Amino acid sequence: MNASSQTNQVPAEAEALTQHLNKEISIHGFVYKIRKMSGFSFVILRTKRALVQCVHSPGYTEFPVEVLKENMSVIFFGKVAAEARSQMGLEIRLKKCEILSAPVAGAPVVINKNSVEASLDTLIDLRPVTLRNVRERAIFKIQEGICRGIRDFLYHNHFTEIHSPKIVFSGAESGSDQFRLDYFGRKAFLTQSPQFYKQMMTGVFERVFEIGPVYRAEKHNTSRHLSEYTSVDLEMGFVSTLRDIMRLEADMLSHTLAFLSEAYAQELTIWGPDYLPSVANIPEIPFAQAKEMVSKTYAREITDGDDFEPEEERLLSELMKKLTGSDFTFVTRYKSSKRPFYAKDCADDPTVTDSFDLIFRGLEITTGGLRIHDYDQQVAKMRAREMNPEDFQHYLLAHKTGLPPHGGLGLGLERFTARLLKLPNVRYATLFPRDTGRLEP
Amino acid sequence: MNASSQTNQVPAEAEALTQHLNKEISIHGFVYKIRKMSGFSFVILRTKRALVQCVHSPGYTEFPVEVLKENMSVIFFGKVAAEARSQMGLEIRLKKCEILSAPVAGAPVVINKNSVEASLDTLIDLRPVTLRNVRERAIFKIQEGICRGIRDFLYHNHFTEIHSPKIVFSGAESGSDQFRLDYFGRKAFLTQSPQFYKQMMTGVFERVFEIGPVYRAEKHNTSRHLSEYTSVDLEMGFVSTLRDIMRLEADMLSHTLAFLSEAYAQELTIWGPDYLPSVANIPEIPFAQAKEMVSKTYAREITDGDDFEPEEERLLSELMKKLTGSDFTFVTRYKSSKRPFYAKDCADDPTVTDSFDLIFRGLEITTGGLRIHDYDQQVAKMRAREMNPEDFQHYLLAHKTGLPPHGGLGLGLERFTARLLKLPNVRYATLFPRDTGRLEP
Repeated sequence: MNASSQTNQVPAEAEALTQHLNKEISIHGFVYKIRKMSGFSFVILRTKRALVQCVHSPGYTEFPVEVLKENMSVIFFGKVAAEARSQMGLEIRLKKCEILSAPVAGAPVVINKNSVEASLDTLIDLRPVTLRNVRERAIFKIQEGICRGIRDFLYHNHFTEIHSPKIVFSGAESGSDQFRLDYFGRKAFLTQSPQFYKQMMTGVFERVFEIGPVYRAEKHNTSRHLSEYTSVDLEMGFVSTLRDIMRLEADMLSHTLAFLSEAYAQELTIWGPDYLPSVANIPEIPFAQAKEMVSKTYAREITDGDDFEPEEERLLSELMKKLTGSDFTFVTRYKSSKRPFYAKDCADDPTVTDSFDLIFRGLEITTGGLRIHDYDQQVAKMRAREMNPEDFQHYLLAHKTGLPPHGGLGLGLERFTARLLKLPNVRYATLFPRDTGRLEP
Repeated sequence: MNASSQTNQVPAEAEALTQHLNKEISIHGFVYKIRKMSGFSFVILRTKRALVQCVHSPGYTEFPVEVLKENMSVIFFGKVAAEARSQMGLEIRLKKCEILSAPVAGAPVVINKNSVEASLDTLIDLRPVTLRNVRERAIFKIQEGICRGIRDFLYHNHFTEIHSPKIVFSGAESGSDQFRLDYFGRKAFLTQSPQFYKQMMTGVFERVFEIGPVYRAEKHNTSRHLSEYTSVDLEMGFVSTLRDIMRLEADMLSHTLAFLSEAYAQELTIWGPDYLPSVANIPEIPFAQAKEMVSKTYAREITDGDDFEPEEERLLSELMKKLTGSDFTFVTRYKSSKRPFYAKDCADDPTVTDSFDLIFRGLEITTGGLRIHDYDQQVAKMRAREMNPEDFQHYLLAHKTGLPPHGGLGLGLERFTARLLKLPNVRYATLFPRDTGRLEP
């Protein structure tokens, strides 16, 4: 069991370099920036996670600084020296270098300043280059940290990770907004959610989760919609009330943020101090009450009584922050007519469902709820909606042969990342976004 | 930071129950089997990962055994007692029960024996039910363990996890065998591999990986092909030779198998003792030599000198096992004409590539290799293949602005799982397989 092969060179985190103070080392990475001073030059090396200050001084360094170009892949040989004025508290005094690869063209935009000055479209068009900026790159390192934190939490809480198919026969939600494809001469769709699969699996593993792509062929191009996004989906059996699911999500986010602040401190430091929210005491408010409160507080007419407008979500969030101090709000008791056929209605009022959304800094990041586990109830609700249970025989086989009371949720990974870093558009937090206008890179 | 919420009931692993010997507990799960003996009954409870022996005895137990039915979701209340003859070394003496959910129909096939006696098609048609069999279920628990082990290893070795789009403009491989879809009026494809994205990201994160779905619209229906499968893809910069990649894979598999034997012992025990292979000293053989050796040893005519037939892979594997004792074989130096345009040719012979396949128990589970990182070389190889570099401008932007020497691999998760458990068809190790004939469940 050898989990640490391939590390004959120094991994360039500050901690690792500190261990080599006053020693000769070799370190590889990309030339990020060359700054000529009087009598010497700073060469900033970009490694997997850090920027390392290196010093080139004629006399000590055995190669001319002119051989270096930005974006070259190099191995540097030199001595680690304490240097209080550098960010890491140390620097590398360069002796030799080996150039492994050289670019044939310069970066089309400036990438080695604090941030990349470019429009969102340019940023994405040039992703392979713009992500070399350490602030841009940190977004996706933090996104990795979110996934790791969530998975850690879920494994620890006895969830089983599954891989369900994305090519499906029919969708969990309505037939609109689905991408169609030709599947060996048959009509097929790209899934909007692993909903059916995760529900079926509660009868097998009791608790399951999946982090994978889902698809929405929505024609509106907004700052919050993507055609393809990464959904963190979970489903758990043997739940009693909706609060079991909401509590699990709060615990999961709490664990994840704590994990981030520990294991991704480097990237969070690049972004600054004001991003990590508290997850303690998330307020909870029924949909109808939230609607009314926003309407009254902001003197807005209610035009759609069944759903939130994006602006209402934003205002609700602002208001709850003021009232409770929380960046998160659980909204419950959404209208049955607006929720899918598998949603469980509230025992005290069948016009609303035992479901919730989680709103974070103005944006819905999660939809969740209890599901109907009883076969007869599920069939009855399908019939009431003029759906044909025959079309769902595989799904209903699970109910027929026994499913536990269960519920779950889906969390949009890009939306969560975007709001965590207060990015104004979900595309900033998507490695290679897909929308109505974009299919490349 | 609370990673252990939602565990007010006993998690039903043997270890946890042992801690409650002679105590009153409650435990939830599914009724797996009811066996009436003379004077009492065994009720086997299926929990998230285990089967727990419970005893119903009139006089002690306060409910009639007749209220229980297989596949019910229940909470049992009772006392944990030592019992040497049970598999766990203990049993639960039932006192009360609460029935949470009852099936309206029995399982369409017998699922509570050692294995499910059904054809592969039936097994898959009835997945929501047949996976309740603990041996079937264990396949996917072990698959989860493989993913966990791999991720652990890669995080530890400074790989960054990415999420690349599955809807793409053009494919990494040739245009055939791709699923097409209508993307807001434009032609798009489902990706065959995250190849381009992971290569571009070596210039950003140096080392990246992704575990996600990929697609092949292959028309042949064999025991080794799926239309949708889960690919473990990784790419690493700053490599010197092909052996860096092969060594990394061997270390990764070694770590993963050690992790499995530790954390998934319960599931491996269900399968039996003869499954975990040794990864020490994987032999390595050039393609041409392997071809010849198989031909000579088994007196087979070589009909296709450029590629293996499936039977040749099987025979090579058998032969290498005999000669070296290894279940794995690295085959290297595949013909350039048979490898993609981004494959690096060998310095000593440009008709073959610096690439490899890993064959495990008769089946290719990995393809990997060094890639061309130099812009001019890559453009030249595209031109030689009559490809238009203009069609790959986003991809080539990475080369143009500097990529490190790099290489990587893709490992088929279902294939690896299937061969690990010696399953004769990759579908056994696919939760919900997709092939030319199957789009459901």
